[in-house]
Amino acid sequence: MFTFQVHATAGAARAGTLSLPHGRVETPAFMPVGTHGVVRGLSSADVRRTGAGIVLGNTYHLHLRPGEAVVRDMGGLHRFTGWDLPMLTDSGGFQVFSLEQLRTISEEGVEFRSHIDGTWRRLTPERATEIQWDLGADVAMAFDHVVPGGAPLELAEEGMERTLRWLERCRDAHLKLQEAAARRNGGTADDAPSRQTLWPIIQGGTYDDLRLRSLAGTLERGPWAGIAIGGLSVGEPKPVMHRILELLEPALPPEVPRYLMGVGFPADLLEGIARGVDLFDCVAATRNGRHGTAWLPTGRINVRGAGLKGSTAPLDPECDCETCTTVSRGYLRHLFVVEDMLGLRLVSIHNVRFLVRLGEQARARILDGSFDRWRREWLERHRQPAADL
Amino acid sequence: MFTFQVHATAGAARAGTLSLPHGRVETPAFMPVGTHGVVRGLSSADVRRTGAGIVLGNTYHLHLRPGEAVVRDMGGLHRFTGWDLPMLTDSGGFQVFSLEQLRTISEEGVEFRSHIDGTWRRLTPERATEIQWDLGADVAMAFDHVVPGGAPLELAEEGMERTLRWLERCRDAHLKLQEAAARRNGGTADDAPSRQTLWPIIQGGTYDDLRLRSLAGTLERGPWAGIAIGGLSVGEPKPVMHRILELLEPALPPEVPRYLMGVGFPADLLEGIARGVDLFDCVAATRNGRHGTAWLPTGRINVRGAGLKGSTAPLDPECDCETCTTVSRGYLRHLFVVEDMLGLRLVSIHNVRFLVRLGEQARARILDGSFDRWRREWLERHRQPAADL
Repeated sequence: MFTFQVHATAGAARAGTLSLPHGRVETPAFMPVGTHGVVRGLSSADVRRTGAGIVLGNTYHLHLRPGEAVVRDMGGLHRFTGWDLPMLTDSGGFQVFSLEQLRTISEEGVEFRSHIDGTWRRLTPERATEIQWDLGADVAMAFDHVVPGGAPLELAEEGMERTLRWLERCRDAHLKLQEAAARRNGGTADDAPSRQTLWPIIQGGTYDDLRLRSLAGTLERGPWAGIAIGGLSVGEPKPVMHRILELLEPALPPEVPRYLMGVGFPADLLEGIARGVDLFDCVAATRNGRHGTAWLPTGRINVRGAGLKGSTAPLDPECDCETCTTVSRGYLRHLFVVEDMLGLRLVSIHNVRFLVRLGEQARARILDGSFDRWRREWLERHRQPAADL
Repeated sequence: MFTFQVHATAGAARAGTLSLPHGRVETPAFMPVGTHGVVRGLSSADVRRTGAGIVLGNTYHLHLRPGEAVVRDMGGLHRFTGWDLPMLTDSGGFQVFSLEQLRTISEEGVEFRSHIDGTWRRLTPERATEIQWDLGADVAMAFDHVVPGGAPLELAEEGMERTLRWLERCRDAHLKLQEAAARRNGGTADDAPSRQTLWPIIQGGTYDDLRLRSLAGTLERGPWAGIAIGGLSVGEPKPVMHRILELLEPALPPEVPRYLMGVGFPADLLEGIARGVDLFDCVAATRNGRHGTAWLPTGRINVRGAGLKGSTAPLDPECDCETCTTVSRGYLRHLFVVEDMLGLRLVSIHNVRFLVRLGEQARARILDGSFDRWRREWLERHRQPAADL
């Protein structure tokens, strides 16, 4: 359980298989984001039909509604949502630290006001770990101190160091939960196969030295079955993100999957894969879908555009998703014009499938040795401005 | 084509099969309403999974957006929407006559303002027929003069008489369109199998004499492959609707299907079936669904109710729909709490399936001879007030 097998590489890019309690995930893979235990507007069957093999849930949102105790008592996030393949929960750190005016930060943890009912709440490494244990995803994330994009050195260093100290507390709390569960099953944590793994998060902003120290400190506190890279895609220029990934890649243990948090757009996925990343998540697929923006091999298109009226062409002729194989551009535009929510859903389905398929295509190209050339050609075609109607 | 076969009866109730260009419809049957060429929030695949065998489109709404010429040029309503089973379009009469302040009515037709862009438009029997021909549903409806529910005798009589005169014009216009199409195909209307049938609408308000005169006048202008009953379920007491249905039933030709327009709620379906009705349509299934109200064999339930929090029970344990077989009441409530559109869709799916299944169940009971007892028990159970949480 929680093993990762690398089948082939192409430079830093890897084609692998991650084994989790609820199934195997073929990598590279995009994880759709199920903020409230639902990928916005999509049923579990919809998501499954996109080919997604793993979905992310947001601990912050699920803690507030319906609350982890409700989810736990209903049998966990899988039974709650009807999604029976692997799941990962974030730790809530990213959301809580985004609540600018509402938090007090101390070594103990974070105090924040619920954006739903204004009540004061505390989140600590221990609580974040317990909440995720109750939610019961295959992968839980360590609670990290997230600093704003572009943070100065001192703040980035403080956040990185605290993230390491909190990592120990998350690890210890997670071990306790595992041991308690094993005892209830009549064994010890060592011989009871765990139902959940905890992954650490590398921080350190855009500072090479901090990033390397974060990784070294993280590995000292291991071993880990997976490692995440946080604090990127938060406003820094793309070359900076690429530089950090290239810096970390040779120092990351090759035998565990790497997860680049909050990324990405299609091009980001390919750039990340080329730099050794195995897993991605991002709300852009569904957020863009709700705004009517669909990704295409040749760029993107807004389905509200007048140019689509009456078009019988599929949204993306190269795509095999439910949307592209069953309805036309003209019908999609009509759905947005008459404001039927089916339009939001159909474009979201396409965008999720687009990223899932991009992972599948990259994997096939890594396996057959043609990844690097294919990636360059794909990126060049995707950047054609003419396709942006 | 356009034939109707009655397999069994139970009193006035009938189990039949209606053959249309896009397939066979087993009756009694509920037709979900696809106002804008979409059953609100549902994909064609969603609707197909409910078991619905025929869907209704609204001529008024489709005329305004995207316009019948767009639909025609895209290959007709079936190709436009991706729904490949039978369809029926209403004539727009009901919608236009609901635009109280915006119309002028004359013998020629109706002038009205678009509720979308304020432009003035005209709808006549000929135009309504031509628009529906362009939309290309299997069944088109005659353009009728709809009077308000509870209209006085004089107004009801005027509307009924005008509906008969307009019926002749619709029939003649439809025949012309068929002949022109047949000529393009190198034949005559007589030897070319038509792709669309035109059904008349019985009017006459709540006045027995007017209703019988409407029916007699309609039959004189036939023959027809189906007959609709309009102007009911517009505010009159249920016993009045039942009385009109019982009045008309023995006078209706048994060899054609009867369609009760704008009905119904579950109990209305069963009461209509018992009085010889074969087809129904109503937006209540999806409208209630969007408001979180789900029909149950024991009444109805609002899924927003606090009592559903944490419930792992299916919405309706007796239902086989996608919603009831994949998610819990607790998850449905959560979706409404976090305002995810998936909740609206899942309850709509259940409600549509509920009515479709009610038709299937009634059919089976008519065929096996147990309809009358089953109907009485079903209605009694459905009226239990306790189920309304």
